[in-house]
Amino acid sequence: MKLLEERILKDGNVLGENILKVDSFLTHQVDYQLMKEIGKAFANRFKDAGLTKVVTIEASGIAPALYVAEALELPMIFAKKAKNITMNEGILTAEVYSFTKQVTSTVSIAGKFLSPDDRILIIDDFLANGQAAKGLIQIIEQAGARVEAVGIVIEKSFQEGRGLLEKLGYPVVSLARLDRFENGQVVFKEADI
Amino acid sequence: MKLLEERILKDGNVLGENILKVDSFLTHQVDYQLMKEIGKAFANRFKDAGLTKVVTIEASGIAPALYVAEALELPMIFAKKAKNITMNEGILTAEVYSFTKQVTSTVSIAGKFLSPDDRILIIDDFLANGQAAKGLIQIIEQAGARVEAVGIVIEKSFQEGRGLLEKLGYPVVSLARLDRFENGQVVFKEADI
Repeated sequence: MKLLEERILKDGNVLGENILKVDSFLTHQVDYQLMKEIGKAFANRFKDAGLTKVVTIEASGIAPALYVAEALELPMIFAKKAKNITMNEGILTAEVYSFTKQVTSTVSIAGKFLSPDDRILIIDDFLANGQAAKGLIQIIEQAGARVEAVGIVIEKSFQEGRGLLEKLGYPVVSLARLDRFENGQVVFKEADI
Repeated sequence: MKLLEERILKDGNVLGENILKVDSFLTHQVDYQLMKEIGKAFANRFKDAGLTKVVTIEASGIAPALYVAEALELPMIFAKKAKNITMNEGILTAEVYSFTKQVTSTVSIAGKFLSPDDRILIIDDFLANGQAAKGLIQIIEQAGARVEAVGIVIEKSFQEGRGLLEKLGYPVVSLARLDRFENGQVVFKEADI
């Protein structure tokens, strides 16, 4: 997605070996116009896939997932990273380790929002090692629902996430793919959209 | 906001003494159409207030705040509940106790996204004891920016949040105000919009 790649080059910050900070438009401050374009791009790709729901994980996945849901006219569900006292019956869970935050979280979705008839598009802001997406897949499959694909805003193609998900049988569709960082600049691989 | 009150009566669940669960359209599964209407309602109220940014707190505040930001054509910032290794310089923080989750979190916003010229609308999904909104106000004022008002989707009017914020001098504008629960049903007070 040209617009996204240009925005990453303009406003993204490369930190150290493998961190791209996009907190001015995606992960902290959010540009709703860019989110709308992201929503349209995914919707255009998946409009004929018979999807019933969009699933993401709090917190940075919510903004793009919401606009994907709007463009596809579907409900969006965001998985929770910690159990809540108002959420106690029929919860489906998976353990997810976050390398960024260096913690293992129990990720959960209330089972009542997923059924065997559901065909799900997972959306997340970043794909690195694939642990978050894998956890969401585990939860969705516990409900007997089907994951059609994993849609990613920014894929770190130098990490193992895409390979892991593809090996498990799930197509990955990424709007921007980071091949490597060179002198503090991002070098992209060809994106899926 | 009539549409929201009707939705709460239809799909909300009263649990115990003082919990209203709205996880089928706001706090877990999200109805983007309702979020759009919420965005328009706040924008209509604040369109002439000279606002520059919308601020919320992860995670359930993000969906309504994003559509408020869209309707007002502004950037949205969501405060973080835990420090992130990619977020390390110039961070403004406040301590917030959540009665729902029974934990104290350090809430933070990167200082570079707030300036003394900013006029902020805070948006949150729930107002109960007012601790989250108070923490956001503290952060925003550390940056020298001005909080114009606090916009709330669902206010628990039987808790002290509104009184606390008004005493501090901040107008509270709520789309639905829960007066009390009677036989497991919500009884509303007159809403602000």
